[in-house]
Amino acid sequence: MLNISHLNATQSDTYQHLDTPFLCVNKQTFLKNLDHLRTRTEALGASLRPHFKTVRAAEALQYLLTDKSSPITVSTVKEAEALMDAGYTDVIYAVGISAAKLPRIKKLLNRGQNIRVLADTPEQAEQVNRFCEENHCSVPVLLEVDCDGHRGGVRPKDPKLIEIAQALHSGAADFKGVLAHAGESYHCLTTETLREAAANEVRAVLEAVTRLQAANIPCEIVSTGSTPTAHHYENLQGVTEVRAGVYGFFDLVMTGIGICDLNQIAATVVATVIGHNHEKGWVFVDAGWMALSGDRGTAKQPHDCGYGLVSDEAGQLLEGMQVSTVNQEHGIITMTNGRTLEPENFPVGSRLNILPNHACATAAMHSQYHVFDTQAETHEVWNRIQGW
Amino acid sequence: MLNISHLNATQSDTYQHLDTPFLCVNKQTFLKNLDHLRTRTEALGASLRPHFKTVRAAEALQYLLTDKSSPITVSTVKEAEALMDAGYTDVIYAVGISAAKLPRIKKLLNRGQNIRVLADTPEQAEQVNRFCEENHCSVPVLLEVDCDGHRGGVRPKDPKLIEIAQALHSGAADFKGVLAHAGESYHCLTTETLREAAANEVRAVLEAVTRLQAANIPCEIVSTGSTPTAHHYENLQGVTEVRAGVYGFFDLVMTGIGICDLNQIAATVVATVIGHNHEKGWVFVDAGWMALSGDRGTAKQPHDCGYGLVSDEAGQLLEGMQVSTVNQEHGIITMTNGRTLEPENFPVGSRLNILPNHACATAAMHSQYHVFDTQAETHEVWNRIQGW
Repeated sequence: MLNISHLNATQSDTYQHLDTPFLCVNKQTFLKNLDHLRTRTEALGASLRPHFKTVRAAEALQYLLTDKSSPITVSTVKEAEALMDAGYTDVIYAVGISAAKLPRIKKLLNRGQNIRVLADTPEQAEQVNRFCEENHCSVPVLLEVDCDGHRGGVRPKDPKLIEIAQALHSGAADFKGVLAHAGESYHCLTTETLREAAANEVRAVLEAVTRLQAANIPCEIVSTGSTPTAHHYENLQGVTEVRAGVYGFFDLVMTGIGICDLNQIAATVVATVIGHNHEKGWVFVDAGWMALSGDRGTAKQPHDCGYGLVSDEAGQLLEGMQVSTVNQEHGIITMTNGRTLEPENFPVGSRLNILPNHACATAAMHSQYHVFDTQAETHEVWNRIQGW
Repeated sequence: MLNISHLNATQSDTYQHLDTPFLCVNKQTFLKNLDHLRTRTEALGASLRPHFKTVRAAEALQYLLTDKSSPITVSTVKEAEALMDAGYTDVIYAVGISAAKLPRIKKLLNRGQNIRVLADTPEQAEQVNRFCEENHCSVPVLLEVDCDGHRGGVRPKDPKLIEIAQALHSGAADFKGVLAHAGESYHCLTTETLREAAANEVRAVLEAVTRLQAANIPCEIVSTGSTPTAHHYENLQGVTEVRAGVYGFFDLVMTGIGICDLNQIAATVVATVIGHNHEKGWVFVDAGWMALSGDRGTAKQPHDCGYGLVSDEAGQLLEGMQVSTVNQEHGIITMTNGRTLEPENFPVGSRLNILPNHACATAAMHSQYHVFDTQAETHEVWNRIQGW
């Protein structure tokens, strides 16, 4: 039985007076999740470069990172700018660069941020080189390596690997190394396949590094990672750093893959019951896709959780209940295990907790986190950095 | 062939210098959509009460409403508060009320806003009455009528209809009338079934009104609406007002139902090509679910549009292309009609326009709209009201 300990926060006045829906973080669980992966990664001799895209709140940086020179990953220039404002300087912008974004990158470099961009096409290499020539600067670039056919990147054996790296290395840009993301690992369901996905991700970047070194192109950064593989590396020799994003909050998708237990999920949405359909056994809550997101990440997993599982205010998982339908500001909770839902057990005005499918997507629907540390009896508000 | 005229804005410096992804509104199309439904509704003798939940921007109110006393619907108390700040006073909060939200409703009433809340359970009626007694106020309440089994509401023949209305009418609250929402109309695909859904919605509220009148409970407000039914009423006698939200922007779901044509879609997402997978024929753009939302509203329609259809910068629909996969900041565009996608036609750095499945969901991912009037050659920024 899940007991989400942070729901002890329900005893606090602050918690009770917050209007629903709101995004609630269990600080102890969050910190434990962060510590676990950092310890694991460092024990394997690599450093952890958390992906800021999940949390996107300056107030959380003190927990995510050791100090202002600690490595961090971003998915938008906006995040990098917010990091610079807060004094954080070691950044990888891990989405393929387009020339139009380079002036903002140059400004960050000028302000002292060591930000690297990502490329995986000769066109991008050419555009970055040209920008650097025309603007008398040197933008650091990583080359994305495709380890599993998931999305972008250049395969280690592809002649373009050397071509792009060489263009950057000998051009006005500053070639810094390689980066891989095992996106296919999100489809793994067993420890064995996860370990294999993790080993394969490492093999791919190391093969790329070997080929580049043979062409006299050094790789200062050798970066791998996804939350599933990050928890399953057994050997990181040759890899300088590991990236992961959702590991701080975790979610039902990660539970479905087997990366975490339900009680490691640190971010949930608190909702209020606003009605019933007695005939159909439905309970309506004031959390629709606007609060939960429309993410259906568990749809293709063995345990489809709809738009989220449900616990009561005391933190007990309500077995068989899930949010089955979402409209903008309505969630419809039903039973999925054939048992009858007793709406009278969930009176209008009572509160329920929704465990999200995908923490990145759910958090993105909110402008603030309400972070409760029930041991220290503290409440923090973290403000999300929005936009691009 | 679709020609989205507002893409003439591409000729403006402002448009070209906006960083992607951004949410782009064609002002002329938006105004035409607004005008069309207002004229249609008023010709049938009812007033239009636009739903603010789609646009949620104070700057858009001058276009949505005639003046500060014009009727408007909201889905959150936050929207009502923003309306009050802007001086708008005739509001329905059309999501079931919970007692915890009543203090904020009372504040709005005290500030002079004529805001009505919604109830469909005896518990809510009792809670509102109790709040009014304890706080020496009178909260206006509408009773939700269930016209099609879609979600909440009380069926016109249900004894609870009179029970709840009577409790409010004779209690400390202020019973104001009935409201129905034909949520099932979103599953209609023909003009005939849409007309029937519209007629049925009207029949249901009028039956409720007749029963309430027989019990000596007057209904000052008789409210119906959904964007699909709003465009298909033939007779609104007895109905005082019509509600609709997405009709200003329209989207692919509405196109799929047959409510609008593609060239009536007023809100799109502008994205930049950031890479290719030549082998798979994929084009990567910098608009993932963070810019498009994860909404899959067309999934169950005859024409599944993935996460959105694609037009070029000149406004021509690129037949057969759609966003098939979204990650947080990546969209993957593929061909769905068996033809080969030629990535070289979409060079890195070029821009594409994504037509969204669900405008409410896509707009919710952005904090700003960039509104271009290409006739007047103006650019407006509308800021979204966020949160609850």
